[in-house]
Amino acid sequence: MRRRSIRKYTDERVTNEQVSGLLKAAMNAPTARNLRPWHFIVMRDREKMDRVPSFHAYSQMMREATVAVLVCGDMKVQERMGYLSADLGAATQNLLLEATEMGLGTVWLGIYPREERMGPIRDLLGIPDHILPFSLVPIGYPAEEKPIRDKFDPERVHNDGW
Amino acid sequence: MRRRSIRKYTDERVTNEQVSGLLKAAMNAPTARNLRPWHFIVMRDREKMDRVPSFHAYSQMMREATVAVLVCGDMKVQERMGYLSADLGAATQNLLLEATEMGLGTVWLGIYPREERMGPIRDLLGIPDHILPFSLVPIGYPAEEKPIRDKFDPERVHNDGW
Repeated sequence: MRRRSIRKYTDERVTNEQVSGLLKAAMNAPTARNLRPWHFIVMRDREKMDRVPSFHAYSQMMREATVAVLVCGDMKVQERMGYLSADLGAATQNLLLEATEMGLGTVWLGIYPREERMGPIRDLLGIPDHILPFSLVPIGYPAEEKPIRDKFDPERVHNDGW
Repeated sequence: MRRRSIRKYTDERVTNEQVSGLLKAAMNAPTARNLRPWHFIVMRDREKMDRVPSFHAYSQMMREATVAVLVCGDMKVQERMGYLSADLGAATQNLLLEATEMGLGTVWLGIYPREERMGPIRDLLGIPDHILPFSLVPIGYPAEEKPIRDKFDPERVHNDGW
């Protein structure tokens, strides 16, 4: 309930140990047939991070974040895109929740299925063709506060049939 | 870390309040453009639950569970399937984690993108064409114990490029 999209960060450094903790949480997500079809690119290079907003309109906070994680999928390991994006969605969510637990702020930036974002980030990071850039998560200590928001909607709940 | 796939359940009843708590967690997942393109069908009907294994080979535990949630997506609200399955993956994962927190056991059964499972569950529950049956989660008090498993793999972590 406390996880919110945080787009402003302080300049306090997020440690490598913290990032490892986030990736441990991400890699503990369940995957179809337990295939674990994921890779994670940790971005700390200032120049590369600053270039992301040139092809992703909602990623201005990449200029402020000191670290980000690109969650990727291996299309040779999981060939069904429906399963791949479900698995990577769960892994991304684990990462966001663990960050909240650590007092860190994150926002989930969609990359897949938008070709206009996937192409440039492939070029920027040298990602091979069989690896899908899925979601990008900037991480930092929050410089904005957001209240808990309850999005429960009883109209979305159905009993024993549509 | 404590979330594992639990496929055996006791006959202790899972209450409606518990199910609401699970759906509250699910609906607090982030979604692309905050569209919240989800619906949830709560299954308690014994006859319907018992029919699932006839079209889903890995769902024998549906006969033992007293409740299950079918996570669905609205393809009119979110037309990009890549985003829809990412959003529903995150929502499903929130549900699994909240169940773990409550001492309940769950297992994520994949429905989408397998047509041979989507068609029969549409028929079983009267799901309209624009609604995507995505994942099915049987829920119960665990009748099996599994240790914590750490799936962290440092070979899946890359720094500043592939």
